[in-house]
Amino acid sequence: MNFSPINPVGWVRQISLPRPGIGDNTADAERLCQALGRELGNRQVRIDWRLLPELPQMLRQGDFCVKATVFPGREGLVVIGLAPANSHSLPILGLAVDIGTTRVAIRLVDMETGQNLGETSFDNPQVAVGPDILSRIHFAHSPEGASELAGQIRSAIGRESQALAQRAGFDATRILAASVAGNTAMSHLFLGLPTANMIREPYIPVINHPGSWEAHALDLPFAPLARVFVFPNIGSYFGGDLVAGIMQTGMDQKQEVTMLVDVGTNAEVVVGNRDWLMACAGAAGPALEGGMSRIGMTAAPGAIDRVSIDPKTRSIAWHTIENKPPVGICGSGVIDLAAGLFLAGMMDIRGKLVPEACSGRLLEKDGLLSLVVVEKALSGTGENLCLDQTDLDSLTRSKAAMYTILRTLTLSVGVEMQNLAAFFVAGTFGSYIDPESAVTIGMLPDLDRSIFSGVGNTSLEGAALLLAQAGSDEKARKIAGRITYLELNVNQEFMNRFSAAKFYPHTDIARFPSVAKKLGAAPAA
Amino acid sequence: MNFSPINPVGWVRQISLPRPGIGDNTADAERLCQALGRELGNRQVRIDWRLLPELPQMLRQGDFCVKATVFPGREGLVVIGLAPANSHSLPILGLAVDIGTTRVAIRLVDMETGQNLGETSFDNPQVAVGPDILSRIHFAHSPEGASELAGQIRSAIGRESQALAQRAGFDATRILAASVAGNTAMSHLFLGLPTANMIREPYIPVINHPGSWEAHALDLPFAPLARVFVFPNIGSYFGGDLVAGIMQTGMDQKQEVTMLVDVGTNAEVVVGNRDWLMACAGAAGPALEGGMSRIGMTAAPGAIDRVSIDPKTRSIAWHTIENKPPVGICGSGVIDLAAGLFLAGMMDIRGKLVPEACSGRLLEKDGLLSLVVVEKALSGTGENLCLDQTDLDSLTRSKAAMYTILRTLTLSVGVEMQNLAAFFVAGTFGSYIDPESAVTIGMLPDLDRSIFSGVGNTSLEGAALLLAQAGSDEKARKIAGRITYLELNVNQEFMNRFSAAKFYPHTDIARFPSVAKKLGAAPAA
Repeated sequence: MNFSPINPVGWVRQISLPRPGIGDNTADAERLCQALGRELGNRQVRIDWRLLPELPQMLRQGDFCVKATVFPGREGLVVIGLAPANSHSLPILGLAVDIGTTRVAIRLVDMETGQNLGETSFDNPQVAVGPDILSRIHFAHSPEGASELAGQIRSAIGRESQALAQRAGFDATRILAASVAGNTAMSHLFLGLPTANMIREPYIPVINHPGSWEAHALDLPFAPLARVFVFPNIGSYFGGDLVAGIMQTGMDQKQEVTMLVDVGTNAEVVVGNRDWLMACAGAAGPALEGGMSRIGMTAAPGAIDRVSIDPKTRSIAWHTIENKPPVGICGSGVIDLAAGLFLAGMMDIRGKLVPEACSGRLLEKDGLLSLVVVEKALSGTGENLCLDQTDLDSLTRSKAAMYTILRTLTLSVGVEMQNLAAFFVAGTFGSYIDPESAVTIGMLPDLDRSIFSGVGNTSLEGAALLLAQAGSDEKARKIAGRITYLELNVNQEFMNRFSAAKFYPHTDIARFPSVAKKLGAAPAA
Repeated sequence: MNFSPINPVGWVRQISLPRPGIGDNTADAERLCQALGRELGNRQVRIDWRLLPELPQMLRQGDFCVKATVFPGREGLVVIGLAPANSHSLPILGLAVDIGTTRVAIRLVDMETGQNLGETSFDNPQVAVGPDILSRIHFAHSPEGASELAGQIRSAIGRESQALAQRAGFDATRILAASVAGNTAMSHLFLGLPTANMIREPYIPVINHPGSWEAHALDLPFAPLARVFVFPNIGSYFGGDLVAGIMQTGMDQKQEVTMLVDVGTNAEVVVGNRDWLMACAGAAGPALEGGMSRIGMTAAPGAIDRVSIDPKTRSIAWHTIENKPPVGICGSGVIDLAAGLFLAGMMDIRGKLVPEACSGRLLEKDGLLSLVVVEKALSGTGENLCLDQTDLDSLTRSKAAMYTILRTLTLSVGVEMQNLAAFFVAGTFGSYIDPESAVTIGMLPDLDRSIFSGVGNTSLEGAALLLAQAGSDEKARKIAGRITYLELNVNQEFMNRFSAAKFYPHTDIARFPSVAKKLGAAPAA
């Protein structure tokens, strides 16, 4: 392991206390906690009661100079680790966790230096109960169901964090702090809380600010005093993963207005700056997550993630993840494909395949048109990889929903999309998507392409940030408190906006000048 | 049990929450906690995580009307009990505890009505290890010793509270909240904390504000979610028992200056009003607690608690506790006796027996004079009950120490004792003592006798008050925070003052005008 300097803004602090005297008879606990409180921005700090019996000796061994690990607990900030300063000690480990509905990502960090000690991801074991949130919520209707799902995710996190720690040369019992971000349902199911009311009007979670939990109460195999911080949510449909994402992008600190979009089956969007934050969420359908009839898949090896179509020859070129033979197509590939088809005139402005333009690539079965994207000779499945008209229709609805949500949100706050200083696209999707294609199909607004930035797994990054920066618990709390949630009212106005967005790129082509320009150059459909 | 109305300022509240709706999607936990927070003086309220799984159903069963028990926890105020409003339920029990060095007193209360359900007292089992604090602190020097002492007092409290609860028709597992007051050493030993540094300069406790503990962490057989509040101390020699006492007398709320004295081997004194509180503590010696050679005893059946001497006939009349045959004399009796001897001229102003005035009552052995207080024919021991000169000397030092402490404290704040609006004397001693005698010997200042009031076990009463008044945890914290502790500096000035007070009533008789008047009427020594 390389030498890393101590993280000066972290949760582990070396501190020198004023020595007690006849004129200063403050008790040991208050002496330590008051000094740490001053060090951490004048916040109240308490000490875990289990450290009290050894506290007097610890302070005097180190001549009132100690290394203390502070972290958010139920009791506010709490000292959970203590050693005489400069005593030889093993690293203090932290674990950042992003609980996705499908995948779970974890990262091990050295709490003292902030160093990344490794990360891994694995399937959410609850997938076996139900691939989607709804089926799990139904399963969790009984207390036994909720506790079974909680047990599944907790033991998977425990097992994987133990393996991760061991690869780094440690034991999971050295993990003293963890931070967990996930959507509201995943967070509730991790905590074993009932979710039934989250899917019934008016969609009420059990808790908005789960705060800190003791690791042993969650059956996690960490240190005896370990605490687990769970990011706050602001409702059933806007979870701690987004709050972590906002913290990670720093959009809550910027003067300029920026936007963060997390695209999946549900699209969650937040816009704002250091003065205000406005959020909404809505169903985008499964098309953007690779959830299409046969050809769709998530971004995994063998998934077509890039497609380009020569507008003149109409030949289709593709790229797969890890250059494996293609077995399906993921969200970014579908968007590229649709953009290419549209610009090549193979798909019309309604998103319908144009038979005369697709020539030899079209199949028809039971009146359903199907486009051969990859011929069986080249495919990894031994079959043609085909995209049919229903897949395209599904994409059309998804991209229209996405644009409508963005538009509704910006209209609600009176911000012009053109004035956004940055447009963050989170998640695996955000890392793979080509903004050029997304704008071409009218899913994202027609902004300067440099505005868009794929920011990766902001939920995991935000969770890691919480471990690295003392006070970030308070930051997360404030972000959650500042967000105004716009309940999407699916009324006539919204439906009109949605209908207009179901065209490529949009019925109002003036909103997409760069696409109009390309269409002028492309052969007419 | 009689019907008692609900205590409107207590910790158990019936509350009706705003129902959730599309425009108000606050989660269940925050909905409840925010409403309770408003109810309890805009304090932050959290909910015990173990109540979360049942919270949604509980709220909806009661149509968002619930009965909640809030109490101080580590996490601030915390909901530890919850039921749909008007559901039939057994009483919620609270236990007030005063841990004295010698005796422990407990009282069971109904947290909802405030009703007293019974009380009892028992010997502190640690007496077997050592009767005084010092020997226990030495015993607790090893962690095993500390944990053994903690185990003793906890199991005694557990056993006695179970018996007390059963006499009231309940089980101790219904005790949901407890509050514990005791001196700093007793509180530390109850919590299993090391006390070694409390007896070494600069006398540092482990913790000033122990706050709230989970009953199960203290091995107390209460409800699973039960919390135990431990009163704060302000140093090794001014404990939570005194803070509870200040709260009980309300001296921290009064405009006038009052004084509270708790007399034992150690004398603890506090003076002040709603603007300031000044305290000090000092050794008063064992004489006032009945710790004299052979005749001394604590206030128990058969102890002489009242003595009067006819100044003319010099005959001694006495009264015993429960009118049992006399077996010894307790603090209040000794003070009465000394006052009587002095006024009858049988003891001189230096506290020495006057042989010619004591005539037939004097014995002499090895040059030591001894006064027969009760002849063997009347005594419960079959022996003469004798007070010898060393006993009187011991009393002289104790009364002088007491007065010197009071004088030093009042001088330090520039308050004339004559201006005190009330003079509270706490403890068993305070209940038995005759202020007339105490003033006569110069132990207490010569104030209007109506100023003195014996206030009983203010430590237990304060602990009970904490259970009865929501917000009193904060009150206790504020009291502890407001007290300025005067470290008694035993310098030449103090010693001069002490020497002057070793005379009866004092070298400066002008300070005791009522005694001077009596002396004028009494025969000269």
